[in-house]
Amino acid sequence: MRKSAPLLGALALAAGAAALGFARSARSGTKEALQPPEPGLLEDLVAANRILSEEGVVDGFGHVSARHPRDPSRFLLARSMAPGLVTADDIMEFGLDGAALDRRGRALYTERFIHSEIYKAYPEISAVVHSHSPSIIPFGVTTVPLRPIYHMSSFLGAGVPVFEIRDAGGPTTDMLIRSAELGAALAQKVGGSAVVLMRGHGNVVVGQSVRQVVFRAIYTEINAKLQSEAMRLGEGEVTFLSDDEAANARRTNDAVLNRPWELWKRRALGPD
Amino acid sequence: MRKSAPLLGALALAAGAAALGFARSARSGTKEALQPPEPGLLEDLVAANRILSEEGVVDGFGHVSARHPRDPSRFLLARSMAPGLVTADDIMEFGLDGAALDRRGRALYTERFIHSEIYKAYPEISAVVHSHSPSIIPFGVTTVPLRPIYHMSSFLGAGVPVFEIRDAGGPTTDMLIRSAELGAALAQKVGGSAVVLMRGHGNVVVGQSVRQVVFRAIYTEINAKLQSEAMRLGEGEVTFLSDDEAANARRTNDAVLNRPWELWKRRALGPD
Amino acid sequence: MRKSAPLLGALALAAGAAALGFARSARSGTKEALQPPEPGLLEDLVAANRILSEEGVVDGFGHVSARHPRDPSRFLLARSMAPGLVTADDIMEFGLDGAALDRRGRALYTERFIHSEIYKAYPEISAVVHSHSPSIIPFGVTTVPLRPIYHMSSFLGAGVPVFEIRDAGGPTTDMLIRSAELGAALAQKVGGSAVVLMRGHGNVVVGQSVRQVVFRAIYTEINAKLQSEAMRLGEGEVTFLSDDEAANARRTNDAVLNRPWELWKRRALGPD
Amino acid sequence: MRKSAPLLGALALAAGAAALGFARSARSGTKEALQPPEPGLLEDLVAANRILSEEGVVDGFGHVSARHPRDPSRFLLARSMAPGLVTADDIMEFGLDGAALDRRGRALYTERFIHSEIYKAYPEISAVVHSHSPSIIPFGVTTVPLRPIYHMSSFLGAGVPVFEIRDAGGPTTDMLIRSAELGAALAQKVGGSAVVLMRGHGNVVVGQSVRQVVFRAIYTEINAKLQSEAMRLGEGEVTFLSDDEAANARRTNDAVLNRPWELWKRRALGPD
Repeated sequence: MRKSAPLLGALALAAGAAALGFARSARSGTKEALQPPEPGLLEDLVAANRILSEEGVVDGFGHVSARHPRDPSRFLLARSMAPGLVTADDIMEFGLDGAALDRRGRALYTERFIHSEIYKAYPEISAVVHSHSPSIIPFGVTTVPLRPIYHMSSFLGAGVPVFEIRDAGGPTTDMLIRSAELGAALAQKVGGSAVVLMRGHGNVVVGQSVRQVVFRAIYTEINAKLQSEAMRLGEGEVTFLSDDEAANARRTNDAVLNRPWELWKRRALGPD
Repeated sequence: MRKSAPLLGALALAAGAAALGFARSARSGTKEALQPPEPGLLEDLVAANRILSEEGVVDGFGHVSARHPRDPSRFLLARSMAPGLVTADDIMEFGLDGAALDRRGRALYTERFIHSEIYKAYPEISAVVHSHSPSIIPFGVTTVPLRPIYHMSSFLGAGVPVFEIRDAGGPTTDMLIRSAELGAALAQKVGGSAVVLMRGHGNVVVGQSVRQVVFRAIYTEINAKLQSEAMRLGEGEVTFLSDDEAANARRTNDAVLNRPWELWKRRALGPD
Repeated sequence: MRKSAPLLGALALAAGAAALGFARSARSGTKEALQPPEPGLLEDLVAANRILSEEGVVDGFGHVSARHPRDPSRFLLARSMAPGLVTADDIMEFGLDGAALDRRGRALYTERFIHSEIYKAYPEISAVVHSHSPSIIPFGVTTVPLRPIYHMSSFLGAGVPVFEIRDAGGPTTDMLIRSAELGAALAQKVGGSAVVLMRGHGNVVVGQSVRQVVFRAIYTEINAKLQSEAMRLGEGEVTFLSDDEAANARRTNDAVLNRPWELWKRRALGPD
Repeated sequence: MRKSAPLLGALALAAGAAALGFARSARSGTKEALQPPEPGLLEDLVAANRILSEEGVVDGFGHVSARHPRDPSRFLLARSMAPGLVTADDIMEFGLDGAALDRRGRALYTERFIHSEIYKAYPEISAVVHSHSPSIIPFGVTTVPLRPIYHMSSFLGAGVPVFEIRDAGGPTTDMLIRSAELGAALAQKVGGSAVVLMRGHGNVVVGQSVRQVVFRAIYTEINAKLQSEAMRLGEGEVTFLSDDEAANARRTNDAVLNRPWELWKRRALGPD
């Protein structure tokens, strides 16, 4: 991944806009003409896919989406593929029912309902990551709550619920959020949290922008690793951020999201 | 490994076919003419060697084989060398007795009997990986069973037996499966499992295709690491996939093997 | 980061000197003309930023500074950005009040008071690193003291205090050292130590040169990781360096700082 | 390190031979003319330095030497520098008193007496590695013996003593083997072992060839990591190789040292 040349120039974005069908005036099954999202958003979404792969949050599986900035009833998500290989051409548009607006035969992520149902339930959420972020898996299968060990992961201070798919889908699922119903059950767990763990599966991270949700996904992974280590070192006695500290640090971090973003983007995509 | 240029073009495959002796109409000691396997299989097998090395499942040791698609009594395996350096030219053909069909002086893996005896005993198995996958070593030397901690490793739900070479080979082996007899004893442990651990040595992973066996070998390594972490975090209390969940997730995963494969291949071999 | 070409030639240094305003004879708000630091210092400070990023001590956050060699009341520090992207052009100059001497609209690190207050309190300190060095985070949130497990980290023998921001800033900070007052409280913890941990945040490492402080920051991270491992392996029973051994090894190491520096620089910046 | 072009062509070897003074017919202070070692040995020794760095056994510190194949009273060792940067030009020749035979102002490793005293005491040893191999540090500061967890590290079956420098050098050393006396005390610990741990410092690995000692140094690091993990997983109950298994596997491995060597060399030095 590290050698990949930048793929996000104007040309690629134009191609991406075409792929999304924005050049056409209308499409079957929807009433409104498709309008391209801001070029910056498309660029950020592609970079988010590559960054999450480079930083080890996603592997061949996992996905990241963004709500359409001018139509809150739509969102952008790649076709079914490894995030580390996504280019602008691979970004598709979906409605809040999880249906592709211009599918053209492309394969879809089975679990797109994670995104659609969260966007449906929470108007303030504009970006969603689903991953099998390795260090969080142990927290999803034990009763140890994930808590903010340092200021970088202060967004965890709002609580990290665990979604047990057996409660919503019964004892014989394949663990996937493969329907709107399961997506709605998962969305209900989000509440005011930034992260929900999925038992035996992974997590969902939500935010108000692509850069914020990437920041949160990466520091959730790091927090899990460091918390696990600290709990062993301290034999369970660990000082976490207080609620006030977490709330204040969260506000502070939201003002500096671009600082690590530039580094992650360079690592994932090379120099501009 | 990361800098290696693609080695799998048509030319290299042609060379590989020649190396396997497919251009000749017959060879001594066998009755049938050698026919080249599908180019895609040879390409996948070379990629599998490189991917397993790049992803840390194998190091200088370990090997991956595929049953010949048109002659179930033969299988393809590299000459004795580090998997991370294998090219199509290095792939040889073997019979189910572990003998090379066209050796031409090349060094052979001592443990090729792992492959031959498994293919002999299980007609439904078409690909085999043997490795010293680091995170599984601790599970082979303790009594803690390897179990599926998340859906990606749901194939572990069929059980992961441990092969103790002292049972079959006595107390003074060099740990290697260096005979058909030891290979048969190991093969007997496989049964319906996807993975068998070898005490003080490594593991064997089996599958129905090269892509499936690579998927399983990689997620076995990841599962071992995450399970070990979870058992410490939860002080032994861990919720694993149920048998039903594992069986269902296994079927689901088998339909998306190509998604991570494309990523792994890019990492190991660079852009096409 | 690994692919970055050398950025530190004479040209870049000249540009850096210009960026610092050294070409001008005076600047508003200070009485003395700015004189450029030795080219070698500027080069080392840029390399220090890149090395700390490459070696995993800093990520998108963290910073490293050097006291001005000819004016102890000033110090050099990058503008607010990821250390892994810093070039000579990004280095700015600050007074001991934490104010930029020639700001020109550039964003500043909120926590520059860590540096200014340490330089103010300790004339013998000439270089400071602040980081969220991952392996030290668990030691900051438990009561286990960080101690020198081997000679490379013998500088820890002088003791590693933990700074609790609640003591100085009350229960509702955002964890950051965002004022001279908090910086002074943190500086007071330094005393004769090379490292101070900051609860729920990271650490501060001090030294008499850029190369020494980078050495200490890197081996603090490594020591934390190895000590944590050793305490588990030995169930708490670990033989650390004695005070005498630590003091002697510290002197020895200070004579060979250039040996690892050349390696780290090559890794971070490529061949000269 | 990964990008470094091959440095070991005939030209570089010729330069290395010249650097060693082999072109001269005699040199002051020794009676015999210097004769160059086999080109292959010099090439292997340079590769060993780079491999140990790339594989994480050494960092900026540590060293590897080889006994001169035609004069057992001399050995080859780099000048004082990071192993990851060593080229043929940097290899020097030493006598068994630890003195450089043709110093020409070059800086020497303080701890060259580790090598000289081991070569003096054990005629059968032809290669020595000293490192701060990270995963072995915890075993040197606790009472847990390092034992062979799998066949790759079967050479550990001969026992892994721990050298306590306080026994030989008293309570106030700087931890370094900075004299022939300390070197002799350390050498005495070797006996029939392949590895000796040095408390609070690192280890020494010995072998009969450069390739064997590199193999042992790398698998000592891996064994330490896996053993530590296994002891936690099994709560102390771990099945190690028996003495017979270890002895037999050791003989087997010694016949396949070239297999991983080719991989490690490619990783460290690129394609030939």
